Amino acid sequence: MHKLNPSLSVDCVIFGLDTNEQSLKILVYEREIFPIEGSGNKNLKFPGSLVIEDEDLDESAYRILNELTGLKNVYLKQFSAFGKPDRIKFDEEREWSEKHYGIKINRVVTIAYYALIRIDKHNPEQKQIKDKLRWINIDNASNLAFDHSHILSVALETLRRDLIFQSAISLELLPKKFTLNHLQSLYEIILGNKLDKRNFRKKIAKAGYIVPIGEKQTGVAHKPAMLYRFDKRKFNKNNEGIATFFI
Amino acid sequence: MHKLNPSLSVDCVIFGLDTNEQSLKILVYEREIFPIEGSGNKNLKFPGSLVIEDEDLDESAYRILNELTGLKNVYLKQFSAFGKPDRIKFDEEREWSEKHYGIKINRVVTIAYYALIRIDKHNPEQKQIKDKLRWINIDNASNLAFDHSHILSVALETLRRDLIFQSAISLELLPKKFTLNHLQSLYEIILGNKLDKRNFRKKIAKAGYIVPIGEKQTGVAHKPAMLYRFDKRKFNKNNEGIATFFI
Repeated sequence: MHKLNPSLSVDCVIFGLDTNEQSLKILVYEREIFPIEGSGNKNLKFPGSLVIEDEDLDESAYRILNELTGLKNVYLKQFSAFGKPDRIKFDEEREWSEKHYGIKINRVVTIAYYALIRIDKHNPEQKQIKDKLRWINIDNASNLAFDHSHILSVALETLRRDLIFQSAISLELLPKKFTLNHLQSLYEIILGNKLDKRNFRKKIAKAGYIVPIGEKQTGVAHKPAMLYRFDKRKFNKNNEGIATFFI
Repeated sequence: MHKLNPSLSVDCVIFGLDTNEQSLKILVYEREIFPIEGSGNKNLKFPGSLVIEDEDLDESAYRILNELTGLKNVYLKQFSAFGKPDRIKFDEEREWSEKHYGIKINRVVTIAYYALIRIDKHNPEQKQIKDKLRWINIDNASNLAFDHSHILSVALETLRRDLIFQSAISLELLPKKFTLNHLQSLYEIILGNKLDKRNFRKKIAKAGYIVPIGEKQTGVAHKPAMLYRFDKRKFNKNNEGIATFFI
């Protein structure tokens, strides 16, 4: 039996891109501690748990994510620690936590990770676990358990910044061959606003590492668009001298 | 008497720009636990301490920095948590820690913050404290105490990225009026490589928020250069739509 650290936890903010609904969602699970009516989202929390005493933080994040959602081989990125002493505000939440972990908990600092996955490729809702997993739209995610709404806002800010400044992460969400409309729509969903098509394509061309493969879409009702791929060699070459990008 | 949390600490990586020597330094303090000879930098560590049980992490960072260095009103930014279970590798380090804090410590996760200051404006070396504070060049900072060399490498990576993508932080290091040579030299020192002057000035002009004030340097031996200032209004205006900057 592993000894849990009563002061330290890990939480995973799993962002999912829903290309059908054109929306950005998060994976949460539902506990039953508050009377459902009127409690808003207070029963919903991110997959997370206390860290085992002799466990590395990153390993802990992968273990917890796998145990709670079945997800594996997902790129998780640590983005912030949250340590307000009153993160656990309600007696019910403290009671739930102590019962859930079977130990007396202290003031808990949580180390938060985020990941970005394609909902159509990973569907953890199918997994049989005692808590009910759900994808919810980020627009309906206010008033989550503990300080999880605050954690979400920092995660979202980080994700948007990473998408802009480390744009290669966007390619985690695309198939090997994609159209420029797919790519633009991914940015629009995550950034939450429409982009100018002409300007977007100019940036793509200037970046130089999103290259046409000389094939077109097949099996589409509309006029088939040109397919593109990510050129890793060009990307690495262009991004060696980061100093050339600033300001 | 405040109760310390035996599992949680805060460490502050204070970067200082030495404009005379044109070098980037860090502020460390020296403990005496290893025989000096042959121990490399193992006696040098960042200002840091265990967190008080009911203390907010950010408040803790400011308190600890002030207690250990006398520094105040410095912008500190949390950048990462470090939690390898074997962060404290040597028995001597564990013994030092337990003696230093007067409590039995567990496996300690540290939340790291960084700050960027002008050495000529802040000189904590003058402060009378029991540990000896020193500025050391980042090039001579291998083999620090605990995992502090690793923490430094992540801090440096973060600082360089922030300088490129959130370039306004560079202005923390400049007087109100500065020359473009000053600004370029700041980038060169921190990024660790020479920049092309013409290209650098083109970027400044394009960014639009570094504006000439219509005055020249005075009291210099060489041909006086034009002075510039940071235009906050233009900066805010240009950076409202971050979506326009990506790729």
